[in-house]
Amino acid sequence: MYHVRFRDPAGAVRRGEWTDGTVRFAGVEYGLDEVDVLAPVEPSKIVCIGRNYADHAAEHGADVPDRPMLFLKGPNTVASHGDTVTLPAGKEQLDWEAELGVVIGEQCKDVDADDAMDVVAGFTCVNDLSNRDDQREEQNWVRGKAFDGAAPMGPVVADPEHVPSDAAVRLRVNGETKQDGSRDQMVFGVEELIAEITTYLTLEPGDVIATGTPEGVGGLADGDRVEVDVEGIPTLEHEVRIP
Amino acid sequence: MYHVRFRDPAGAVRRGEWTDGTVRFAGVEYGLDEVDVLAPVEPSKIVCIGRNYADHAAEHGADVPDRPMLFLKGPNTVASHGDTVTLPAGKEQLDWEAELGVVIGEQCKDVDADDAMDVVAGFTCVNDLSNRDDQREEQNWVRGKAFDGAAPMGPVVADPEHVPSDAAVRLRVNGETKQDGSRDQMVFGVEELIAEITTYLTLEPGDVIATGTPEGVGGLADGDRVEVDVEGIPTLEHEVRIP
Repeated sequence: MYHVRFRDPAGAVRRGEWTDGTVRFAGVEYGLDEVDVLAPVEPSKIVCIGRNYADHAAEHGADVPDRPMLFLKGPNTVASHGDTVTLPAGKEQLDWEAELGVVIGEQCKDVDADDAMDVVAGFTCVNDLSNRDDQREEQNWVRGKAFDGAAPMGPVVADPEHVPSDAAVRLRVNGETKQDGSRDQMVFGVEELIAEITTYLTLEPGDVIATGTPEGVGGLADGDRVEVDVEGIPTLEHEVRIP
Repeated sequence: MYHVRFRDPAGAVRRGEWTDGTVRFAGVEYGLDEVDVLAPVEPSKIVCIGRNYADHAAEHGADVPDRPMLFLKGPNTVASHGDTVTLPAGKEQLDWEAELGVVIGEQCKDVDADDAMDVVAGFTCVNDLSNRDDQREEQNWVRGKAFDGAAPMGPVVADPEHVPSDAAVRLRVNGETKQDGSRDQMVFGVEELIAEITTYLTLEPGDVIATGTPEGVGGLADGDRVEVDVEGIPTLEHEVRIP
């Protein structure tokens, strides 16, 4: 099942089901042009993983870390399917990063890797938008990674069985393929990431782990239309505006 | 006025007034031994400032940055007056850092420094607890700074007029003074910090800016009793447990 959150024509926020490009709540079906698709969850935090694909680390001239590289995005970074994200003004390099998002289903701490899938509600698509001008200058990537709208996600939470262990992770800009990786290229898998993060941080229902991006990141231009396409999950689409 | 959030003897969460060590809601006064004092706000994010006192930067052998050094703590880091915070296990160096906390009163973005006090609800005391073992190894300070309970805060939000521009910022461990600085030693003041942060991030009511710590940080031991004492605000007290 694909779980969607949307604002119906009367303005009410509904949690329903996504099927073949329609959404449904309480037996009433709507076309996507009739509703506003919202981010599928309201995370208290997004825990992101850097350099989790060897080929992406290499394109930045960086080594693969010996344990997961963690960074944080706050709730202000959430953006939705169909949104136009306004990026920080006056920057030279603003990049896309297609990622598999893991959605947490229950409050959890100190989770063993063997049990980690028990706390996963499902998967979503994430674009880990990055302001490289500031990221390069900062110790902690706040201006670089945690600006408003820096984490478009959605359009749904897909039940885990929809997403194969070798799911393709792709991104297109204005229809042209820019990233084409696979979940099985991840250095640290979903279970290891949950175990490591929950050694230090309690995760809450709706929290998201953005699992890192494959090679092929690059620079956005004003008006670009971005599609993040994780195999087994409907495609996340959004546009960007650069003031 | 000092604004307090507490759980009353019947278990209800109340937002009331703190006066001389008692708390009051709807005309009923309770002693502190009758209630659980809660963190005075429920931040969506805590934006912290590194190296914002020259003498503290120097004790780490670091320069003062040319713009505010930002890092993030999530809602999982909030701890309350009177709590015993369990710190990460198996670490060599776990430090205290007394800080003036700025509590945001309204949703805001792109705030001019000249108008910044308009978005401030008041001030609180924060202990920016730090796990140096991991902080030293990490690009982004997640294990180092964003572990559960890493931001004890409170006991109240003090209206801004209670806290002078040269307020003392002090910390005691088991009654012994360890830090004794002053708000007017900050490299970047409250107004500049709000202007810089809101260039990138929308702040929400209840969000907290932890404005950095003066010199004198040091290592905690199991069972230590910590007091953070910012002039004009009742003292924040908590204990730590190191497993």
